[in-house]
Amino acid sequence: MFGENIKNIFCKKGRKFVNNTNNSKLKIIPLGGLHEVGKNMTVFEYENDMFVLDCGLAFPEDDMLGIDLVIPDITYLRKNADKIRGIVITHGHEDHIGALPYVLKELNIPIYATKLTLGLIETKLEEHGLLKSTKMFCVKQGQRVKLGCFDVEFIRTNHSIPDSVALAINTPVGMIVHTGDFKVDYTPIDGGTIDLAKLGILGKRGVLALMADSTNAERPGFTMSESTIGEVFDELFDTDQRIMVATFASNIHRIQQVINSAVKTKRKVAVCGRSMLNVITVAHKLGYMKIPSGTLIEVDDIGRYSPHQICILTTGSQGEPMAALSRIANSEHKKIEIYPGDRVIISASPIPGNEKYVSKLVDDLFKQGADVIYHSIAETHVSGHACQEELKLIQALVRPKYFIPVHGEYKHLRQHAKLAEKMGMDVNNIFILSNGKVLELDKNSAKVAGIVPSGRVMVDGLGVGDVGSVVLRDRQHLSQDGLIVVVLTLDHETGTVVAGPDIISRGFIYMKESETFIEEIKVILRKQLLEYEQNGVKDWNTIKTGIKEALKDFLFEKTKRKPMILPIVMEI
Amino acid sequence: MFGENIKNIFCKKGRKFVNNTNNSKLKIIPLGGLHEVGKNMTVFEYENDMFVLDCGLAFPEDDMLGIDLVIPDITYLRKNADKIRGIVITHGHEDHIGALPYVLKELNIPIYATKLTLGLIETKLEEHGLLKSTKMFCVKQGQRVKLGCFDVEFIRTNHSIPDSVALAINTPVGMIVHTGDFKVDYTPIDGGTIDLAKLGILGKRGVLALMADSTNAERPGFTMSESTIGEVFDELFDTDQRIMVATFASNIHRIQQVINSAVKTKRKVAVCGRSMLNVITVAHKLGYMKIPSGTLIEVDDIGRYSPHQICILTTGSQGEPMAALSRIANSEHKKIEIYPGDRVIISASPIPGNEKYVSKLVDDLFKQGADVIYHSIAETHVSGHACQEELKLIQALVRPKYFIPVHGEYKHLRQHAKLAEKMGMDVNNIFILSNGKVLELDKNSAKVAGIVPSGRVMVDGLGVGDVGSVVLRDRQHLSQDGLIVVVLTLDHETGTVVAGPDIISRGFIYMKESETFIEEIKVILRKQLLEYEQNGVKDWNTIKTGIKEALKDFLFEKTKRKPMILPIVMEI
Repeated sequence: MFGENIKNIFCKKGRKFVNNTNNSKLKIIPLGGLHEVGKNMTVFEYENDMFVLDCGLAFPEDDMLGIDLVIPDITYLRKNADKIRGIVITHGHEDHIGALPYVLKELNIPIYATKLTLGLIETKLEEHGLLKSTKMFCVKQGQRVKLGCFDVEFIRTNHSIPDSVALAINTPVGMIVHTGDFKVDYTPIDGGTIDLAKLGILGKRGVLALMADSTNAERPGFTMSESTIGEVFDELFDTDQRIMVATFASNIHRIQQVINSAVKTKRKVAVCGRSMLNVITVAHKLGYMKIPSGTLIEVDDIGRYSPHQICILTTGSQGEPMAALSRIANSEHKKIEIYPGDRVIISASPIPGNEKYVSKLVDDLFKQGADVIYHSIAETHVSGHACQEELKLIQALVRPKYFIPVHGEYKHLRQHAKLAEKMGMDVNNIFILSNGKVLELDKNSAKVAGIVPSGRVMVDGLGVGDVGSVVLRDRQHLSQDGLIVVVLTLDHETGTVVAGPDIISRGFIYMKESETFIEEIKVILRKQLLEYEQNGVKDWNTIKTGIKEALKDFLFEKTKRKPMILPIVMEI
Repeated sequence: MFGENIKNIFCKKGRKFVNNTNNSKLKIIPLGGLHEVGKNMTVFEYENDMFVLDCGLAFPEDDMLGIDLVIPDITYLRKNADKIRGIVITHGHEDHIGALPYVLKELNIPIYATKLTLGLIETKLEEHGLLKSTKMFCVKQGQRVKLGCFDVEFIRTNHSIPDSVALAINTPVGMIVHTGDFKVDYTPIDGGTIDLAKLGILGKRGVLALMADSTNAERPGFTMSESTIGEVFDELFDTDQRIMVATFASNIHRIQQVINSAVKTKRKVAVCGRSMLNVITVAHKLGYMKIPSGTLIEVDDIGRYSPHQICILTTGSQGEPMAALSRIANSEHKKIEIYPGDRVIISASPIPGNEKYVSKLVDDLFKQGADVIYHSIAETHVSGHACQEELKLIQALVRPKYFIPVHGEYKHLRQHAKLAEKMGMDVNNIFILSNGKVLELDKNSAKVAGIVPSGRVMVDGLGVGDVGSVVLRDRQHLSQDGLIVVVLTLDHETGTVVAGPDIISRGFIYMKESETFIEEIKVILRKQLLEYEQNGVKDWNTIKTGIKEALKDFLFEKTKRKPMILPIVMEI
């Protein structure tokens, strides 16, 4: 279990305000999370001390065919391995913890996080065989840890996962406040409201720079409280129908509310989906969920109860084709099927890019006869991120000298910067950074000074970073028009074709129905090869290029497609 | 020009209400457009007469790799070619006219549509060399045409393209009203409000069945008038900045409003994007746009004017990577670049599935220094489809006996059905059909009776329907993990390997950096082949299967990837 040697990591009571007596600067270097939603990672560096804030993954873009996930480029960490005092994690979402296994395989750095966050990290490290080798320190909201010259305080926030924190990072040049992912929830499910007073106190004392979550900077108003969803559930559960709720596996408060409403309406709860089962197990063990005994049942036992006694909790709220709910909706799930009249509640909004998946999911469920309640027709979800009024509240409390909007696409960062500007901040004191940019600060100044390596490292199976633009371009080409392989064997003495040309094609035309066409291709090839033979051309490259050229135009003219052409010449 | 022989196609004044004296039924058969948004096509059939309503394409789904577009399966039309009296088109959008070239190549059927719609169809048929062979009849809103036993009246509607119509289809068993795509716009840009009175009159006389647009059936309220956008443009154009507006190429009213605001603010308009130029040319020629002379300039001449004198109209509002605006945003456009301070208005909402493209476009524009005005932060777009209150209005006017929600995914059809139910319609009189289902009606009854072939025909380059599930599955496989080709030449007498095994790979690993790995693969292959040689195995299939099996597990163990393995054995 994490937490050994826990004492000596904490700062003594009473904050020692370190003064930098020299000209050294604090460097803030985002390695991920800017101009994107995902793979959050920021480096704080002062002289010989460095720590890393968050260590997340991103999901692949549409053009990254076959890629499993994306992590930040950590060249800069590798170079400075001896300086790194720790990795601080703000909360347990994949875009903040997902790259840990890959980073820890290279760099053995201690992790500092709250209890639930560490619990989720543990599961992940265990899968990668990294649990024993990794030091993990459990930090409570309100506690401070020492990381070299940095003194980092964990501040309670609200978010769509419990135990999330903002950070007050005391540095030799001044105080930096980082909000982590947050919203302001005055009626949270548990854990209390974000510690606004603390942020106010920091603001009164003087904050050099604020780094704040920009995800919802485009949205006016205030994000609704998580507890409003419980009220909606209470109403929706008050029915004779069987209930099925899909939500994010990590949204523990949402899951708690499903359980609350199920208990109120005397329903048993069956959990479906490995990731959700994992999270519930961890959260329950660590005391983050209250589940009356006898509430949870096995999926196999659903049949023992009447519909009105059942609530099924499932993953797949984003319509992911392989997730439990999609399989249920397509009658491909081994244990659960939709009965006409089932009330299926999709308690999530589509994440950008998933709209079509979710739409198809809703359609499939309706077709099975379900009564589907989803984002377009009911308030079944609230965001975990702050909207404009909350962002302004934080600005007003923290009143930083410099402002660095973080966590979002460029448009989000820009809207967030605009908000700060409207509140009176000098536009020269706002820094919209991009990944790799180095922001240097001291008490009186801040400027972008230099750049370090950053970027996207693609993970495909066991390969980390081995798939690059060449392989992706080939996958793209193959995906559009397939390929045609031309293979022949030459006698290298005479240059005579002794076998072939043979044609194999995949993803271009349906070979079984294209015999005439393939024969036409062979005629063209034979003509070309005869020419080479007669002219004594034996050079492989000339022959390969000739084959490609001869085929390319012919294939395009006949099909308006451009398959990859792979000529293979063997010699005996 | 279309319209020759125009006289004898129209019905005489005074409607002859045909009575069916026998037991024949009217068949309504959707061949596309249900459970999807796209490829709209419906067949109306009575005894020996048939006509087709709309003939649209759909854009390929994400899993249809390399496919250009999708059209309906017209097996049923082919079988009944001699019965088809015409194709009636409701308006000029691609999902209503886009399949015409493919259908007309097989079946020479006359087209009936309004002037602008025919103008857009003409351009399309010209590209496909079908203009001369196709008969086209121009029908005005308010006119009626005779198609065998059917008497079809064109009724004025509002939509995001001018000259759209609903249809009153008088059949031997009763009146069918089809709304086409519509909204109710009391302050349209031109052409007048949808002919509500006409719909009311039909309702009073008695309508057997209503088929109505379900696209926005999930949205409460009323769709805003197109003219509200003009007011927004007027405000946004009132600036010293250069203006750039992206919208749908076919949204002629929107384009008209851009021109109006440009003229008011003394700006010249340069049009960028081939499809938009085409539409403007056709619409202007046919009198659907008012462009004061001297307003339009060539893109090449933009540089001659100050920023505040310029408005650039462009395609690419959906962030399509190859469209003009995306190329401009990526500095890849030959003639236009973004200057810091340019005001770029994206006058469109993302179509489901395009959200990420649009998001990237906005980000790229912001990064270039543009002041981007888009759907998240301003009212720059209104829908062309009716919301719930409008749908109810139509129900209230038409008061049909039977109701068939059309044009939408299943969830839209279902919500539309629910609306009708709430207004008091008997649930047994509502038919949510799917493509291919045959609805049989007479005066007193309606029921689903049978099914005809329907489905998706994929167009890839010149191939129509030749790419099927096998080719797509191969493209999918290749896109994820690429391929590895193993090629060797055997002496067919001795079974000895005389050349190879050679390895060629694409999209799997980066070959230049994988020499050791490829050598390992060859070692495994040689071992396997030696075994065959020693055991006298000469059978190609055994050898190929053996190679596949030997490699599959090895490659997966080493990479956790599953490339396509293509073993090629040549013989001499």
